[in-house]
Amino acid sequence: MKTFDPPDPNFETRVRRSFARQQVMETIGARLTQVAPGAVEIELPFRRDLTQQHGFLHAGILTTIVDSACGYAALSLMPKGSAVLTVEYKINLLSPAEGERMVARGRVAKAGRTLTVCAGDVFAVTAGQKKLVATMLATMIALPDRDDLSD
Amino acid sequence: MKTFDPPDPNFETRVRRSFARQQVMETIGARLTQVAPGAVEIELPFRRDLTQQHGFLHAGILTTIVDSACGYAALSLMPKGSAVLTVEYKINLLSPAEGERMVARGRVAKAGRTLTVCAGDVFAVTAGQKKLVATMLATMIALPDRDDLSD
Amino acid sequence: MKTFDPPDPNFETRVRRSFARQQVMETIGARLTQVAPGAVEIELPFRRDLTQQHGFLHAGILTTIVDSACGYAALSLMPKGSAVLTVEYKINLLSPAEGERMVARGRVAKAGRTLTVCAGDVFAVTAGQKKLVATMLATMIALPDRDDLSD
Amino acid sequence: MKTFDPPDPNFETRVRRSFARQQVMETIGARLTQVAPGAVEIELPFRRDLTQQHGFLHAGILTTIVDSACGYAALSLMPKGSAVLTVEYKINLLSPAEGERMVARGRVAKAGRTLTVCAGDVFAVTAGQKKLVATMLATMIALPDRDDLSD
Repeated sequence: MKTFDPPDPNFETRVRRSFARQQVMETIGARLTQVAPGAVEIELPFRRDLTQQHGFLHAGILTTIVDSACGYAALSLMPKGSAVLTVEYKINLLSPAEGERMVARGRVAKAGRTLTVCAGDVFAVTAGQKKLVATMLATMIALPDRDDLSD
Repeated sequence: MKTFDPPDPNFETRVRRSFARQQVMETIGARLTQVAPGAVEIELPFRRDLTQQHGFLHAGILTTIVDSACGYAALSLMPKGSAVLTVEYKINLLSPAEGERMVARGRVAKAGRTLTVCAGDVFAVTAGQKKLVATMLATMIALPDRDDLSD
Repeated sequence: MKTFDPPDPNFETRVRRSFARQQVMETIGARLTQVAPGAVEIELPFRRDLTQQHGFLHAGILTTIVDSACGYAALSLMPKGSAVLTVEYKINLLSPAEGERMVARGRVAKAGRTLTVCAGDVFAVTAGQKKLVATMLATMIALPDRDDLSD
Repeated sequence: MKTFDPPDPNFETRVRRSFARQQVMETIGARLTQVAPGAVEIELPFRRDLTQQHGFLHAGILTTIVDSACGYAALSLMPKGSAVLTVEYKINLLSPAEGERMVARGRVAKAGRTLTVCAGDVFAVTAGQKKLVATMLATMIALPDRDDLSD
């Protein structure tokens, strides 16, 4: 794993405050568990009311947490005043998303001035065992100095 | 637009019943509005409790509805007894997801025996005007004759 | 199909000159056949020396022509002085790439100041019949006013 | 890195023979350098006649070698008699592809009976220094017992 030197020493506070403004996270019950430079982890306990037709968590819900994990991994390396937006992502669903809880990890693969490329994984955790259920490759963009958008 | 001849004349009922079992759709307030052979539409009224940090709908929520629209477009062309699962998708976010409601459309680009490739779009609708906010390219798989999974 | 108003009236000349500098196109025998605002077509006659192990054109060769078709569709809408680079793409291979020639079409789905999202298709043509063999969704970036890169 | 137990002990010979049948590899000058269970490496010396308009290797050429590296990583874990085909891939171009040679590495992320998901990277090597220039996420399919296709 690469190590990164964040340009804003206050990166963790910015990430945590921004996450707290993502109302969807409270709605689905996700928590921000780890924030490091270029690496962020979000957890989601399994909930029946977030499932698809076979009783697994819906792919879009896995996407919600791993997209945010990737986006905040990118934001952790952006200078103060930048806002982060998702340009695009691709995700492969590897196994049915069932288990006690899901752990989504996003990490920066390449940090650029405008674009940041991130890789993400989602693991299902059951009785302390982790299983990879989804993997993502994503592109994030930094919008600097916008009055209307921040973090 | 291609036209398709569905192998199961009962395709609409199967799609609607399967959608009704997706508990996440009730949780976020999404409705299945149209089911045609190889083409499905899902609507989602804007809700503040599904937003990201800037007040737009979270990309993962858009993904949830357009993934299901694509998956059910694929299922509408699968023979009776098959279950549909998402293999992977890629989505580009084109504009901030704000508006009165979102309309997700999935359509089959290529239907195969095992794999079906779908294209999807999400439009934001405000005062009768539609704006394209996201576009998806997805791969779905048919699992035939599984006792544990259907539709 | 959307219609676009190109900011540089000289767009076709810029695209054709840039294509002529892509040495790989001469190496594989590809030709630039159509240039319209936001839409470009490239053709490639089938050649045995570009095939994979089963005798079909290699997916990477299809990608080469449809990536350039998408990139030049994007460039056709960029202001004078901008260079275009590919950020990323996703491609689905739908059918074996065999036939007399391949026709790759790229078109702009959303043109932005920095990023342009394009959709592309590759058709195999045999005895006047076209068959869709691949479909792409791509993100291009405009690099303005670079001394070292243009078009 | 995961370790895999290949079902066909003859996997390396199968991969090398199949690669030798990919005529495009001889055309562009690529060589198969390493074959391990679930991991394959392909090298390509830089050649001016494979470049795009700015003098970098064309993204489609990078894609050609990393697609084959991923495909053969998947084939190395498939039972005898299976043929491998690419379903789809997504690639991010991270830095201009310039250097003495390119090294593409494909590895299996999840091996399934029908579908195998692979991750790939391309590094540019100059004076012994490696730089990541592209990263791929791909889906491969195993076609068992086909008379017309093998490996």
